Amino acid sequence: MTHVTIREVCLRDGLQIEDPIPLSAKLELLEAVVATGVREVEATAFVSPSKVPALADAAALAAELPRFREAHGVEFSALVAGPGGAGRAVAAGMSSLEYVVSAADGHSHANVGRSTADSTHLIADITRIAHENDASIEVIIATAWDCPFDGPTDPGRVVDIATAAYELGADRIAIADTIGTTTPGRVTGLVNRVRPVIGDLPLGAHFHNTRGTGLASAYAAVVAGVTRLDSSVGGLGGCPFAPGASGNIATEDLVYLLRDSDVDVDVDLQAAIHAAGVAQKAVGHELPSALLRAGDRLLA
Amino acid sequence: MTHVTIREVCLRDGLQIEDPIPLSAKLELLEAVVATGVREVEATAFVSPSKVPALADAAALAAELPRFREAHGVEFSALVAGPGGAGRAVAAGMSSLEYVVSAADGHSHANVGRSTADSTHLIADITRIAHENDASIEVIIATAWDCPFDGPTDPGRVVDIATAAYELGADRIAIADTIGTTTPGRVTGLVNRVRPVIGDLPLGAHFHNTRGTGLASAYAAVVAGVTRLDSSVGGLGGCPFAPGASGNIATEDLVYLLRDSDVDVDVDLQAAIHAAGVAQKAVGHELPSALLRAGDRLLA
Repeated sequence: MTHVTIREVCLRDGLQIEDPIPLSAKLELLEAVVATGVREVEATAFVSPSKVPALADAAALAAELPRFREAHGVEFSALVAGPGGAGRAVAAGMSSLEYVVSAADGHSHANVGRSTADSTHLIADITRIAHENDASIEVIIATAWDCPFDGPTDPGRVVDIATAAYELGADRIAIADTIGTTTPGRVTGLVNRVRPVIGDLPLGAHFHNTRGTGLASAYAAVVAGVTRLDSSVGGLGGCPFAPGASGNIATEDLVYLLRDSDVDVDVDLQAAIHAAGVAQKAVGHELPSALLRAGDRLLA
Repeated sequence: MTHVTIREVCLRDGLQIEDPIPLSAKLELLEAVVATGVREVEATAFVSPSKVPALADAAALAAELPRFREAHGVEFSALVAGPGGAGRAVAAGMSSLEYVVSAADGHSHANVGRSTADSTHLIADITRIAHENDASIEVIIATAWDCPFDGPTDPGRVVDIATAAYELGADRIAIADTIGTTTPGRVTGLVNRVRPVIGDLPLGAHFHNTRGTGLASAYAAVVAGVTRLDSSVGGLGGCPFAPGASGNIATEDLVYLLRDSDVDVDVDLQAAIHAAGVAQKAVGHELPSALLRAGDRLLA
């Protein structure tokens, strides 16, 4: 039976587009999230507080994480956009970093004010900062299929970034469908291109359900050899700098699909549905999760 | 490039759970549907008007179909629940019938007041009625994966019905996820069981998106060899006799996914999005379609 590691991203990708919520509400959500059995949680991002006010409390949140790590054995990660953020993240005690490189120049400039080439260059610095501080580093390749500004992404650009990340010492690679446009056929194609150039590194994928295709893409990714998937309880989330991006795939919907398709996951379905309810309460509006409405199978 | 025939079911499966709408509104929706380029449309059902009041105008609608068939070359089908309905359907001029056999006794009794075995028996009569009137007959195997009353369906029961339908002269077979619970892994498994027992007959599949897995299941079905898929513009629809069943997979979401995954379809995406809007207006409430909200790819 295949095993897939689910990384819960509701606290970062899920909340970043929302109005800021109090740290206490984040901790309540975190309690519900760790109760699902999930092994990895993307907790926050060390980025500009003026660009992402919802995550301005990154250091304060990071200070709360050790007790959750000790109690539940969960690994927490933080997203960074450059060496400065990487430095702040490790100083705050984060032991797992994610660094985003946009494969499309249009999105790269809009997101971090740099070209793809310049962002790729920085992988070396950020990897050094991570490793000198006993942290691991994942390179997430954003707009891996399409860019809202540049159109379809040449898969060769993704392969080049993945190759560079591998050669520069990254610990994990992920490919991200930033604006929720890809589909199973293209997912299979890109995984087949990226998987051979990254040696034995774990390969993850990140999908949004903007066009209803997120779960189909996630399953195609697993079939093609991806062993890590990001998801967000309730389907919370989006990217404020990519027009139209909304709705990470919902953790509970993903767990339902994978478990039923004989893929082993760490996350308990009922606990994930409960956490989705906590997330919905935290943000105060309806979330797009299917399972939150329909529940597990209706059986007599 | 694989070709998949999409059958548009908004007028039958889509509308049957809704409050009845006037025939004029159905014809307006039909205009939008045939403008998508779709080659097959499930137009109505010849069933008890007291059980499905939304389709009580079946004969009146059937009388309108020849002009659409002549103008657009579309094939129209009608669902029937027994020999009586089959007789009324051919008398009304329908040239393509669908007969549902529930693989689970619980759903079969709730839906048509007969056991699975009794419904399977009737395939012979209904096939004779169809063929004597120059109509084709498709056997749709409902609750092919799960039943809201009996729980998971033994795949052997589905294989037995498919075998009987093949031997009794059905022209097409379909497997239906009546309550929207199946997932890609089980879809692949069942297609692999059914495909070998039905000779060269076309095999279709019917999915609901109740748990967000409908499109993933549809794609898995295509990969496994299914060449026909049902969908409904806007994701309109459900089954009033299966608790929790709601939302056919949306035609526009399916077209987006298949086209982007290099599967050839007859349906134009923009026209399907337009038809989804017409459907939404016809029923007067929001429909679950993703593309109706997000549109086609957002590209500069």
